[in-house]
Amino acid sequence: MDLEGRDIISIRELTREEIDWILKTADSMEPIAKKGSDMLKGKILATLFFEPSTRTKLSFETAMLKLGGETIGFAEPEAASIKKGESLADTIRVIQNYSDVIVLRHPLEGAARFAAEYAEIPIINAGSGSEEHPTQALLDLYTIRREKGGIDGLNIALVGDLRYGRTVHSLAYALSLYNVKLYLVSPSLLRMRREVIEDIKGKIEVIEGLGLEEVIPDVDVLYVTRIQKERFPDLSEYAKVKGSYMINLDVLKGAKDDMIILHPLPRVDEVAVEVDSTPYAKYFKQVWYGVIVRMAILALILGAVK
Amino acid sequence: MDLEGRDIISIRELTREEIDWILKTADSMEPIAKKGSDMLKGKILATLFFEPSTRTKLSFETAMLKLGGETIGFAEPEAASIKKGESLADTIRVIQNYSDVIVLRHPLEGAARFAAEYAEIPIINAGSGSEEHPTQALLDLYTIRREKGGIDGLNIALVGDLRYGRTVHSLAYALSLYNVKLYLVSPSLLRMRREVIEDIKGKIEVIEGLGLEEVIPDVDVLYVTRIQKERFPDLSEYAKVKGSYMINLDVLKGAKDDMIILHPLPRVDEVAVEVDSTPYAKYFKQVWYGVIVRMAILALILGAVK
Amino acid sequence: MDLEGRDIISIRELTREEIDWILKTADSMEPIAKKGSDMLKGKILATLFFEPSTRTKLSFETAMLKLGGETIGFAEPEAASIKKGESLADTIRVIQNYSDVIVLRHPLEGAARFAAEYAEIPIINAGSGSEEHPTQALLDLYTIRREKGGIDGLNIALVGDLRYGRTVHSLAYALSLYNVKLYLVSPSLLRMRREVIEDIKGKIEVIEGLGLEEVIPDVDVLYVTRIQKERFPDLSEYAKVKGSYMINLDVLKGAKDDMIILHPLPRVDEVAVEVDSTPYAKYFKQVWYGVIVRMAILALILGAVK
Repeated sequence: MDLEGRDIISIRELTREEIDWILKTADSMEPIAKKGSDMLKGKILATLFFEPSTRTKLSFETAMLKLGGETIGFAEPEAASIKKGESLADTIRVIQNYSDVIVLRHPLEGAARFAAEYAEIPIINAGSGSEEHPTQALLDLYTIRREKGGIDGLNIALVGDLRYGRTVHSLAYALSLYNVKLYLVSPSLLRMRREVIEDIKGKIEVIEGLGLEEVIPDVDVLYVTRIQKERFPDLSEYAKVKGSYMINLDVLKGAKDDMIILHPLPRVDEVAVEVDSTPYAKYFKQVWYGVIVRMAILALILGAVK
Repeated sequence: MDLEGRDIISIRELTREEIDWILKTADSMEPIAKKGSDMLKGKILATLFFEPSTRTKLSFETAMLKLGGETIGFAEPEAASIKKGESLADTIRVIQNYSDVIVLRHPLEGAARFAAEYAEIPIINAGSGSEEHPTQALLDLYTIRREKGGIDGLNIALVGDLRYGRTVHSLAYALSLYNVKLYLVSPSLLRMRREVIEDIKGKIEVIEGLGLEEVIPDVDVLYVTRIQKERFPDLSEYAKVKGSYMINLDVLKGAKDDMIILHPLPRVDEVAVEVDSTPYAKYFKQVWYGVIVRMAILALILGAVK
Repeated sequence: MDLEGRDIISIRELTREEIDWILKTADSMEPIAKKGSDMLKGKILATLFFEPSTRTKLSFETAMLKLGGETIGFAEPEAASIKKGESLADTIRVIQNYSDVIVLRHPLEGAARFAAEYAEIPIINAGSGSEEHPTQALLDLYTIRREKGGIDGLNIALVGDLRYGRTVHSLAYALSLYNVKLYLVSPSLLRMRREVIEDIKGKIEVIEGLGLEEVIPDVDVLYVTRIQKERFPDLSEYAKVKGSYMINLDVLKGAKDDMIILHPLPRVDEVAVEVDSTPYAKYFKQVWYGVIVRMAILALILGAVK
């Protein structure tokens, strides 16, 4: 198996074998993350964030630096040449002269795939439009595997904004490669898109329409997402659902002892602060796992691990 | 003595022995600063500037890079997750997964201490609200010690905005650990806060109420601060005091030959440009000393120097 | 010959011998660019961009990182101390304590030279006002030399905005050191400034007043520039010339087979996308040559190559 030179645009383009290999490589990255390495010395990662995402940008930068590489990039599109009317295709063809791999975040759907068609170096999709965010899905899988000892056989609930949140689409596709039961728990306004559900239903058991309290006793993993105000066309709709689907100690009373809670972060109030100190809370550990998963991805697509 | 793992929140939490040790360590950093080193190879400094301060940010970055470490961070809070409603506690618990030490600048008083309570890695306060700025105080002390051969026995005047300027509080506390005479010279509107004066008066001689020309013949160190427009609740008050307390060649006529002038920078017009070429002017050397003092702090709290 | 410690403010301060030496050094940088090096380990480049230019900033950063050095800097002047009223002279005298070389981009003419007078470390002008942009001229020369096997004897056309575009002034001066025939092709509103033409006319043959189609059959190099909206005092004037002087397949019908097209980028629509896939198009290779030319400049002025 060889991922050298591969673009990471959609989780759907990775086989279960490839995903498992990335997760296994992530295991081997943990000691390296702690002491640093020279695996990617002389290599440069360009982070092109046409839409702000401090957390994702810093996570990739940390991963690259821990491997001995360097980073360049921008987080303020208004400072970029884009402002002067440059096309994305041109920007990519310029930046690939400065770097060995590009991480792209863009407000428009399809932007990452479009960029990959022009680039001669690997492109990693860090979110485009409300589409997939494949490295988030990989780190979510890694967190589940690491904290639960494996993925097959688990009951997993995705909770909150399943329509506009870009992480849940990638995660649902990824989970459909494993033997899991998937609960989708959301306000009807924010149900997961039909095409995603149709796609995964043939592969795994998907249960929609239950309330949070009904699914909690049965789940091993509770994946909570922020209800993102900026994705709402109408703020009065946001007001209606805000605060529903909030996880607090009371809601968790019926949960299994070894249930775990994940969250792509940032969270606002969908997981109460009182939950942070319970053994359920794995969302900050998830951040750490994100660094080592991204290290694995960078090392693999740049050919430092084969 | 061991500073490994220590937060640097307030100068008041450091003993004179610890301060002297930091200053002594800074001496040993100067040759390293000139040629670079691998002392902190594999370590990452996160600079979280929720309020802009180019100079302080670049100074810390330079210090880290000279030690062989790397840096990540942000200088534009509006680009950060904060915009999405994330709490400072969450931001810190995320960022500590990306880094080995955090430098924090925040507009709110107490933010650095609050962050330190949540962080498992060391936090360095680079200014929170109009409170302390401990690393500036340390570099001020270092400049005095280096340029005057020591601190004990000196007559030192703090001039300008002693109320809103955050560097002077930390410096006053720090100087109270030494045997100095301290003149506080400011418009009455901008007098140093009562609680600071009360605190240091028991330890050193503090003289308030004199004019600039009265103190100049007696002082060894003139520490001038900018009258910061952005700290004034009322701009007409700013207009009244602007330009008072300006240091120029005329004002310096009565000064001792070996008197030195320090300034935390940036300066606007409180020190006339004609002073720059006199032997009194040490404010640009002070910038260099800031790099080596910050190298010392990073090396000590990350355990590279014991 | 020794360029150690030299400022790069204007192409006019470099002799043909020095330019040729820089270009020759760039040749030797290409293998280093591919695998990285430790030539400038421990050195820091400060990029001070008081005006945005993502491309130039990233190009210099990449060059420095490929040589093993590190970078600090800012791209958002509003975040900088400048906002607090600091003079450029003070900013330079501060930043030189953090770095070994400064790359400066500034909206005001003469800013780079002014900075160089205050700095004790080398300053590289990355554009000040509508004046010169010397490293762009050097990479343009390198591209011509590399793609055509040499510069002497060529017919070269500069096309588009020859008045406000800052790259063409530097390039015209640089070309006047070689034995070339120079066509200047622009709307009359955007003719090259009289003083530049007077200066180079004594050295090389300069032909003005011809249309694009008249010169194309005769030229070896077509250097196309963007008609920069932001340089126009009057937007109705911009509307008039926009789209004129556009290069497309039709216009290129009469061109020599081995003619090459260069462009400082970003382009908007002055070179049609259909041209990108022709052998004429060298503007993306030019970006790569920019990295190795800037590596050569950094290595030379920091004394790593002698």
